[in-house]
Amino acid sequence: MSEHSGGPSSCFSWIDEARATRARAGLVRALRPRPAAAPLLDLASNDYLGLARHPLITEAAARAARRWGAGSTGSRLVTGSTRLHAELEAELADFCGFEAALVLSSGYAANLAAVTALTGEGTLIASDAYNHASLIDGCRLSRAGTVVVPHAEPEAVHKAFDGHRGRAVAVTDSVFSVDGDAAPLTALSAVCREAGAALLVDDAHGLGVLGEGGRGAPHAAGLAGAADTVATVTLSKSLGSQGGAVLGPARVIEHLVNTARTFIFDTGLAPAATGAALAALGLLRREPERAARARAVAARLHGLLAGAGLEAVAPDASVVSVRAPSPAAAVRWAADCRAAGLHVGCFRPPSVPDGISRLRLTARGDLSDAQIETAAGTVTRTAPAAAE
Amino acid sequence: MSEHSGGPSSCFSWIDEARATRARAGLVRALRPRPAAAPLLDLASNDYLGLARHPLITEAAARAARRWGAGSTGSRLVTGSTRLHAELEAELADFCGFEAALVLSSGYAANLAAVTALTGEGTLIASDAYNHASLIDGCRLSRAGTVVVPHAEPEAVHKAFDGHRGRAVAVTDSVFSVDGDAAPLTALSAVCREAGAALLVDDAHGLGVLGEGGRGAPHAAGLAGAADTVATVTLSKSLGSQGGAVLGPARVIEHLVNTARTFIFDTGLAPAATGAALAALGLLRREPERAARARAVAARLHGLLAGAGLEAVAPDASVVSVRAPSPAAAVRWAADCRAAGLHVGCFRPPSVPDGISRLRLTARGDLSDAQIETAAGTVTRTAPAAAE
Repeated sequence: MSEHSGGPSSCFSWIDEARATRARAGLVRALRPRPAAAPLLDLASNDYLGLARHPLITEAAARAARRWGAGSTGSRLVTGSTRLHAELEAELADFCGFEAALVLSSGYAANLAAVTALTGEGTLIASDAYNHASLIDGCRLSRAGTVVVPHAEPEAVHKAFDGHRGRAVAVTDSVFSVDGDAAPLTALSAVCREAGAALLVDDAHGLGVLGEGGRGAPHAAGLAGAADTVATVTLSKSLGSQGGAVLGPARVIEHLVNTARTFIFDTGLAPAATGAALAALGLLRREPERAARARAVAARLHGLLAGAGLEAVAPDASVVSVRAPSPAAAVRWAADCRAAGLHVGCFRPPSVPDGISRLRLTARGDLSDAQIETAAGTVTRTAPAAAE
Repeated sequence: MSEHSGGPSSCFSWIDEARATRARAGLVRALRPRPAAAPLLDLASNDYLGLARHPLITEAAARAARRWGAGSTGSRLVTGSTRLHAELEAELADFCGFEAALVLSSGYAANLAAVTALTGEGTLIASDAYNHASLIDGCRLSRAGTVVVPHAEPEAVHKAFDGHRGRAVAVTDSVFSVDGDAAPLTALSAVCREAGAALLVDDAHGLGVLGEGGRGAPHAAGLAGAADTVATVTLSKSLGSQGGAVLGPARVIEHLVNTARTFIFDTGLAPAATGAALAALGLLRREPERAARARAVAARLHGLLAGAGLEAVAPDASVVSVRAPSPAAAVRWAADCRAAGLHVGCFRPPSVPDGISRLRLTARGDLSDAQIETAAGTVTRTAPAAAE
């Protein structure tokens, strides 16, 4: 009997089996839409500086929608480029210290664009084992060969490039989302230069938090504006908006305009998101202490959790990660926090590269000292027994 | 001498060569940011119903930014799902006639999500030769085998599936962007059902234009809500906003929530874009004649152009395509239109699947009869000589 004898719906019957497998493993995910006035203390978002609800930023979004329209109406190459996009690109490049910038509709799209446009047949990519899904998908979409190298090991990148003839690119997150640890950018850049390779850094979790006034990890490492360094950023984390961008030498940006499929064949970023990100950069310029405050909140939160005996990773940016004994324990822990009024991230397979489940806490720069203590107290009080 | 003896910048010297090659071929693209009050008559955007600047839509965007924030602050699975997203998803599904819907940050992301999540190792994909770049990238990212089938030929899909054991999916645009021609959805669905295959339709250029009141091409073909049919749409064309969505059976949508990387690892769509798209759907419900008007404008525009002897493709939706004798002639033609106050799209290799350069005109539903005549007159008057 053929597989499709069950009528039209039988073509998706495999989905029910996949669902049952997930359910047995305790790995079912469901959406939980939140109300406008969230009743929980938020340590789960990526709103590192608390700007998504800042009135200056939301007003800038509203103003841009009124002045420029609700959408950009087309590809950036046709009607989707407004002068607001050009202004944001100039400001992003200037703030982060790069020659030029290109704004895309998401950080995901920016990473797909950067990885595919900078590589080709014969290129060798050395990709950190803990890189974000969008970088991994970029490697898959490219026609390059990819070597996945052990996490945060410049020596492994050196070995991967050894003996390779032709173009090479090392690809890494600047701050890894799950554990909040930083990549060794200075050492990676040295290894790349020795091999004549380019360095591509996804600074999604660094912009607004690391570097002078939040100029990001490449800036902090002295790599901003380097002729062989390209960075991607997102506008949806520290900047409280939506979208992504590629920063680099002008010739790289021009190359992306001409060749990057997720730039050419996508609708340009909406004016509201463009205007909000521009306003957030303006705020960072006027209040450069916001970046340092986010780092200080993370250090304080980590200190309290580690002091209470929890297995928390020392934060390099604004993410504090706490290990859980199992996926089920992590889910229960996060639910107990939620019941106590605290929203924390719960990361478990397959969203964790090392298979270890954990809580992920965002040390938002706008948390008060009292909120930090409340959060740490809640996480500690609800922690699963070590033996679990 | 090794390739990298020229210092850090030499790792991108290949980009200068690629640039020179493009320049010699006359295929250099540059961004041309537009002012807020565009001085040109726009027949180049994908704003098919003219809603991007409609005050009800821009006010909805502004209101959503104020109420919900400038960004959604995280993955839809963590903090990025608001009740506004849930409301839009319910309304999209209901309007288009599907059981469920899932909103993503772009149509590109929606296509990557749908193609990869509905396929896997051993799946056979039959992909129309003229499909959009995002569907092609979805096929590349999937672990499925892909057969590229001749454009709009259900019989070719039938042959591709013949003898295949295991899962199969046919993937097609509903309206092809470049020529504005429609896919034979009814025949494709019949072929899929015979083979026990699923049908995935990208309705980016159909939503808001085709079907009763703009409910889209699957609805018009009687396939909306079918157990074996999945559609993707964009919120950035007829709805005048930004973002994309997947529509289908509830079990397919739940599967995407659990497995689609461009959903799980991306920031949720910004509230402003979400609210604008929701308002646009409300407007379509109240003013269902908008869809028919867009089709009538396209028919009228085509009639005038064909009547003037131009090689214009009879439109199935809101796009009117006019052939140009060469890439250089197309560029010159579009520039001459622009000089005369008319903005038209200029498509040329590598953005055209058949290698034929053309002007692409958007028959916006809000164009007046006088504007249609002005546009047709300008395109006709500036047309290159046939012998060119």
